[in-house]
Amino acid sequence: MPDYKAPLRDMRFLIDRVFDFHAHYAALGAHDASPDMVHAILEEGAKFCENVLAPLNRSGDEEGCRFDNGAVTTPTGFKQAFAQYVEGGWHGLAADPAYGGQGLPSSLGLAVSEMVASSNTSWGMYPGLTHGAMSAIHAHGSDAQKQTYLTPLTAGRWTGTMCLTEAHCGTDLGLIKTRAVPQADGSYAVTGSKIFISAGEHDMSANIIHLVLAKLPDAPAGTKGISLFIVPKFLPDAAGEAGERNGVTCGSIEHKMGIKASATCVMNFDGAKGFLIGEPNKGLNCMFTMMNHARLGTGMQGLCLGEASFQGAVRYANDRLQMRSLTGAKAPDRPADPIIVHPDVRRMLLTMKAFNEGNRALTYFTAQMLDIAHLSRDEAARREAEDLLAFLTPICKAFMTETGLEVTNHGMQVFGGHGFIREWGMEQLVRDCRIAPIYEGTNGIQALDLLGRKVLGSQGKLLRGFTRIVHKFCQAHAGHAQLGGFVAQLDLLNRQWGELTLLVGGAAMKNPDEVGAASVDYLMYSGYIVLAYLWLRMARVAQAQLEAGEGDGDFCRGKLATCEFYFKRLLPRTAAHRAAVEAGSDCLMKLPAELFSL
Amino acid sequence: MPDYKAPLRDMRFLIDRVFDFHAHYAALGAHDASPDMVHAILEEGAKFCENVLAPLNRSGDEEGCRFDNGAVTTPTGFKQAFAQYVEGGWHGLAADPAYGGQGLPSSLGLAVSEMVASSNTSWGMYPGLTHGAMSAIHAHGSDAQKQTYLTPLTAGRWTGTMCLTEAHCGTDLGLIKTRAVPQADGSYAVTGSKIFISAGEHDMSANIIHLVLAKLPDAPAGTKGISLFIVPKFLPDAAGEAGERNGVTCGSIEHKMGIKASATCVMNFDGAKGFLIGEPNKGLNCMFTMMNHARLGTGMQGLCLGEASFQGAVRYANDRLQMRSLTGAKAPDRPADPIIVHPDVRRMLLTMKAFNEGNRALTYFTAQMLDIAHLSRDEAARREAEDLLAFLTPICKAFMTETGLEVTNHGMQVFGGHGFIREWGMEQLVRDCRIAPIYEGTNGIQALDLLGRKVLGSQGKLLRGFTRIVHKFCQAHAGHAQLGGFVAQLDLLNRQWGELTLLVGGAAMKNPDEVGAASVDYLMYSGYIVLAYLWLRMARVAQAQLEAGEGDGDFCRGKLATCEFYFKRLLPRTAAHRAAVEAGSDCLMKLPAELFSL
Repeated sequence: MPDYKAPLRDMRFLIDRVFDFHAHYAALGAHDASPDMVHAILEEGAKFCENVLAPLNRSGDEEGCRFDNGAVTTPTGFKQAFAQYVEGGWHGLAADPAYGGQGLPSSLGLAVSEMVASSNTSWGMYPGLTHGAMSAIHAHGSDAQKQTYLTPLTAGRWTGTMCLTEAHCGTDLGLIKTRAVPQADGSYAVTGSKIFISAGEHDMSANIIHLVLAKLPDAPAGTKGISLFIVPKFLPDAAGEAGERNGVTCGSIEHKMGIKASATCVMNFDGAKGFLIGEPNKGLNCMFTMMNHARLGTGMQGLCLGEASFQGAVRYANDRLQMRSLTGAKAPDRPADPIIVHPDVRRMLLTMKAFNEGNRALTYFTAQMLDIAHLSRDEAARREAEDLLAFLTPICKAFMTETGLEVTNHGMQVFGGHGFIREWGMEQLVRDCRIAPIYEGTNGIQALDLLGRKVLGSQGKLLRGFTRIVHKFCQAHAGHAQLGGFVAQLDLLNRQWGELTLLVGGAAMKNPDEVGAASVDYLMYSGYIVLAYLWLRMARVAQAQLEAGEGDGDFCRGKLATCEFYFKRLLPRTAAHRAAVEAGSDCLMKLPAELFSL
Repeated sequence: MPDYKAPLRDMRFLIDRVFDFHAHYAALGAHDASPDMVHAILEEGAKFCENVLAPLNRSGDEEGCRFDNGAVTTPTGFKQAFAQYVEGGWHGLAADPAYGGQGLPSSLGLAVSEMVASSNTSWGMYPGLTHGAMSAIHAHGSDAQKQTYLTPLTAGRWTGTMCLTEAHCGTDLGLIKTRAVPQADGSYAVTGSKIFISAGEHDMSANIIHLVLAKLPDAPAGTKGISLFIVPKFLPDAAGEAGERNGVTCGSIEHKMGIKASATCVMNFDGAKGFLIGEPNKGLNCMFTMMNHARLGTGMQGLCLGEASFQGAVRYANDRLQMRSLTGAKAPDRPADPIIVHPDVRRMLLTMKAFNEGNRALTYFTAQMLDIAHLSRDEAARREAEDLLAFLTPICKAFMTETGLEVTNHGMQVFGGHGFIREWGMEQLVRDCRIAPIYEGTNGIQALDLLGRKVLGSQGKLLRGFTRIVHKFCQAHAGHAQLGGFVAQLDLLNRQWGELTLLVGGAAMKNPDEVGAASVDYLMYSGYIVLAYLWLRMARVAQAQLEAGEGDGDFCRGKLATCEFYFKRLLPRTAAHRAAVEAGSDCLMKLPAELFSL
């Protein structure tokens, strides 16, 4: 397994320099998140992830989860690591102090969770799902529900799940069959079967709180008839502890391509006692309120696995001796040169570096919007942040997981044949990453959300909210001595982005299939432009630091070189995506379905 | 596991119509390969693959190979399937009749091996490696060696391997440490350790014949000092049967991401008796003579796994009900529409179809060159075919495996969450495919071979040999009523290809790193143009058949629609690759190696 070292220098560069989180936290009144506190949290988080979680990543993959008669055993060390995590105060870092949390901003929680998922993605699923359940209860639960559930969840004594998918429906939740029948005591009897339930059953906590989508007997058809229920594994007793066993059991666990140490469960509800959360038939809305956070988290898996892969690949490329540089031996005293001398190996490494660092910047930029949306008292600022968040979330989820998959595949390729061997750990990163473009709404669904719901659904307003920021940046830095060429390239693309959107919007007025035909290429096109903007923000700071003789000159030169690489070798991919968008729906739809397999 | 049905209609379309294999075989004097014989072989081959090999694919992946004290046990059914394969006469199909083969052309052998690898890639490795060893012995062995080894290998009583890689070198074979010391009896004592030896040890044959690269005591350094040896597991006795056990043993097998049913062995040679094959110190040349065949075979794994994935994905897309078409319900009597109504699902399916069918055409086109190079008595024709083969082989290997990996990933994505679950078989295809861009020369090495050795090394001659064919085709079909627009698009790209090559060639004169900086993008750029040419050849035939009222109209319309899709949505990717080539080496090389990981 490649050793993991938290990229603290890069994280600090974004936090201290590029996005000035300190001013951001101060403006939001998040005074607990002082600069010292932020740096201390990152350093301590790094130690925990490097020393506790990373060593369990390979063994967790090999061992997987065991299912035996309804019980799930997680791999050796997972339970102990969770106890340490809870003890260290990591679990409640960004949770509400009213229920025992530390109340630090979401963005700081996300920075820590980057290190968690980079060192052990499977393990990170258990607290990750719990945080999702906590958000839902926090946003929609009654005071009594919050008191009952949030306190032990925040303390990490209990964990949580999200139970949405059924065997016959994932994307199309309107089709769910799980039923909830009202009982005399005000509770509901929940009956049905859910699949793909991460952390549905395991041995890490005293109780598991399931959030379950189900239909009331009189519910309208489709997505407007779905309600959300709390279904605990053990019903809380009078003292608030795990009491009587409820009628929910794990039927089996899935055998998967990757994230093998994350238990993916079939959960059977057999008249289980459930408690309605939020309003009847508004369950899907309850889910949507926490979607931004969950989708950003899933997008980050692309960044995290990409970072782990990059670290392994750079080390290997410096160690592995093979062939001589075509411009003359670089290590003449050794039998061959380290493969990092070869341009094509560098192409792979720089592609990885450019996507990872760009995706990290996207994560931090978006996380700031998340903070503002949660914490700001300025309604206009909050609304603006929510709009940006709505626009950026599907891009984060889909672009970061697509590129994360590309990155992990490059990392494996750098290792040659050894990359295919499990022992080296590089192929695990590809397998673990492969789920990210699928779950939490497939990337196809993200693309429809971006183009159909967000961009066209707002008559372009959400897009303009972002292109305006880019435009201002380009105006402010037009003619920049070192970066002016790239600024001009971004400015042009930023304008073409609007034109392309108008083209698709016009076509979609006549034929709704134009949206689905364009959507994935439109999302990728958008993602490349978003990253170009963020790369220039980083490069501008690096250039200024260099000129001022501040910071680490080597680090700044690395940033500038990677920015140049991004603009010259990755950003031109927008041309291919634009052409695909312009091709329209006709060449997709004209072939009758039955002729595909001839 | 998706059921496999051999795509006989598509294969016949290429054989009968597009490339007219019958005239081709007649011209080469391959009279045994009559049209009836060809069709009978394809049909019987299809039955064998569909009924015997495909059912062992999933179970083989689950079971894997077992290693116990030097012995390797292949998964249940593998040994019996090999016996049936041999009994059915498949093993010697394209082998020399002088040693018991049927002497049919290589291209026909490749058509059968497409079906083998589509139904069970891991299983296909065992006969595949044997065929490689047979080619080497056939091309370079003495008459006595041919008699001793080719007869039992052709009969499938023995199998073969290629032992090249060592732990510290794969690409850079000049570094190998395995030694061969001459013995008094004219044999050599071979000592060393080889890794990644496919089919190095198993239970399917009575003997295993290793072809081993090793260095003689007085060998020059580097690749000019490598010799090739035959090292049998059991030394042939006087009767030509497997006799005394030789000093070669399997030390362990690798645990891999995919092709788990293919035994990947560490082979330890401990003074094993070996026999020099070919001239001393010319071992690498001996290997190169069969490289074209082996690399085309590896490229085909991209096609084969892509085909298997496509078949699964189309079936699922027609069965799975989820959401309504945006243009109104298409299956109003069912709870939702089959997902094939959604444009983005079609984008994935058509991408798969366009690459698979294009790659199949590339395989057949290249296989014809292989036949001509082997069988033609016309020296000029032979030389032309060899040049085309030299040019196309790295494209086949790298482009077909890159796109095969894309295709299998799309197939998995079509299944949503179910794609990640082993039971459905779609993720296995991704894992099995992932080795293909790595082994048999990484795709990076293929790209250097194409641009450096073949294109620039021939001063552009090998490229012009192909672009001339494309140019003639474009001239002949300029203004084609239905396809003229695509012809013009191809003609333009064909010219730009030459210009881009001149640009890189000029830069490489000044700086050799320009070759490695451009190579992979140049290869992909080239591959898209090659496929565009082949798609137009198919479309032209389909259009002519439609107009003449010949053949299956639906099939022809499917071809034309897929060709249009390819030109409109995939071919524009050339723009991104061209821009990356034009970016040059500077942005790859300027960052010092030690700054990558800051």
